Amino acid sequence: MGKLKFSASVSLDGFSAGPDQSRDNPLGVGGRALHEWAFATRTFHEMQGQEGGETGVDDEQAGAWSHDTGATIMGRNMFGPIRGDWGDEAWNGWWGDDPPYHTPVFVLTHHAREPVEMQGGTTFHFVTDGIEAALERAREAAGGLEVSIGGGAATVRQYLRARLVDEMRIHVMPVLLGGGERLLDDIGGAIDDFELVELVSSRAAAHFTYRRRGEE
Amino acid sequence: MGKLKFSASVSLDGFSAGPDQSRDNPLGVGGRALHEWAFATRTFHEMQGQEGGETGVDDEQAGAWSHDTGATIMGRNMFGPIRGDWGDEAWNGWWGDDPPYHTPVFVLTHHAREPVEMQGGTTFHFVTDGIEAALERAREAAGGLEVSIGGGAATVRQYLRARLVDEMRIHVMPVLLGGGERLLDDIGGAIDDFELVELVSSRAAAHFTYRRRGEE
Repeated sequence: MGKLKFSASVSLDGFSAGPDQSRDNPLGVGGRALHEWAFATRTFHEMQGQEGGETGVDDEQAGAWSHDTGATIMGRNMFGPIRGDWGDEAWNGWWGDDPPYHTPVFVLTHHAREPVEMQGGTTFHFVTDGIEAALERAREAAGGLEVSIGGGAATVRQYLRARLVDEMRIHVMPVLLGGGERLLDDIGGAIDDFELVELVSSRAAAHFTYRRRGEE
Repeated sequence: MGKLKFSASVSLDGFSAGPDQSRDNPLGVGGRALHEWAFATRTFHEMQGQEGGETGVDDEQAGAWSHDTGATIMGRNMFGPIRGDWGDEAWNGWWGDDPPYHTPVFVLTHHAREPVEMQGGTTFHFVTDGIEAALERAREAAGGLEVSIGGGAATVRQYLRARLVDEMRIHVMPVLLGGGERLLDDIGGAIDDFELVELVSSRAAAHFTYRRRGEE
């Protein structure tokens, strides 16, 4: 059964998105800086169809899971800024016609919608019956590969609280946002489930990798 | 004029002390784990009058400031668990007869008390007229050396908010405490004062060093 994992960047003060998230500023004020460590990497360049990019610690982190992921889960707020029902259904995510997932993506929502097939292998499925149902469908779709939680923080926390996460990579940036959404707040005893398996850093970020105790 | 600096260990979820601090548990539940990175170092062994200890990244961090510090400032709660007036004045800190400071230590308090001279060069002075007065007195006492904020988090935040800190080292441990006291909460625009000058890690911790912009 494919493992459930996530990779998230946080500021040194613990925020995975800045304050005042909006359609114009989906990562919140200052939130883009959380991902700077990845933008320079060869892996990210490849994802964007570009040449070049840096190798090394950050690139290893960015690429660690890129070939193991068979399905993605994300929260409604990560998929888009629309609240309530889907209206004219014109919103197909932030990522243009060819989103960077290249897998089935299961969007958690209270509002049913037909699947939307994008270019490049990404199809958005809308799941209205909760996180466990979404995980079950994602695992089926992943066909033995792993399932990644794309975000955002609220979705990650739901899966942590439900004790369903097998592995997590947390990238701490030397950035202070001073406000926003905290990744690891209010997850209760779930914190005891994990052991550190790696801690490495570049000049850009410190990368912490955890695995559920007792798993390989 | 001697720089004002502090060094603090935080959990990955941003806490510099665990929940439920008490006389028996001054670092809060789980808080001792925040300092594990330092305990193994040669510098820490020397502070304890012991042989041995590890060298390397963590030891460089632990020893970085040990010879530059001429005075220390700490909050009342770091000095001890007693609240209100000093009563019989029997409390002389958590650290025994020979505290590890070996400098004058200025304790912020609302309750006046005569200085207490300990062994090894540590004298506790009690300052009742605020953080700026304490800093002025500490700088005089430091005689050109630097002034260190010993803690706790509330005291660090007061100096950050007042824009008085010149340099800070933040040691992020791969520990999740799930609650406690946050180091970098509610410091407002002070976060913009600093630039990263170093980010290094060992297997034990990631060490972030910041300096006030424009300073050497």
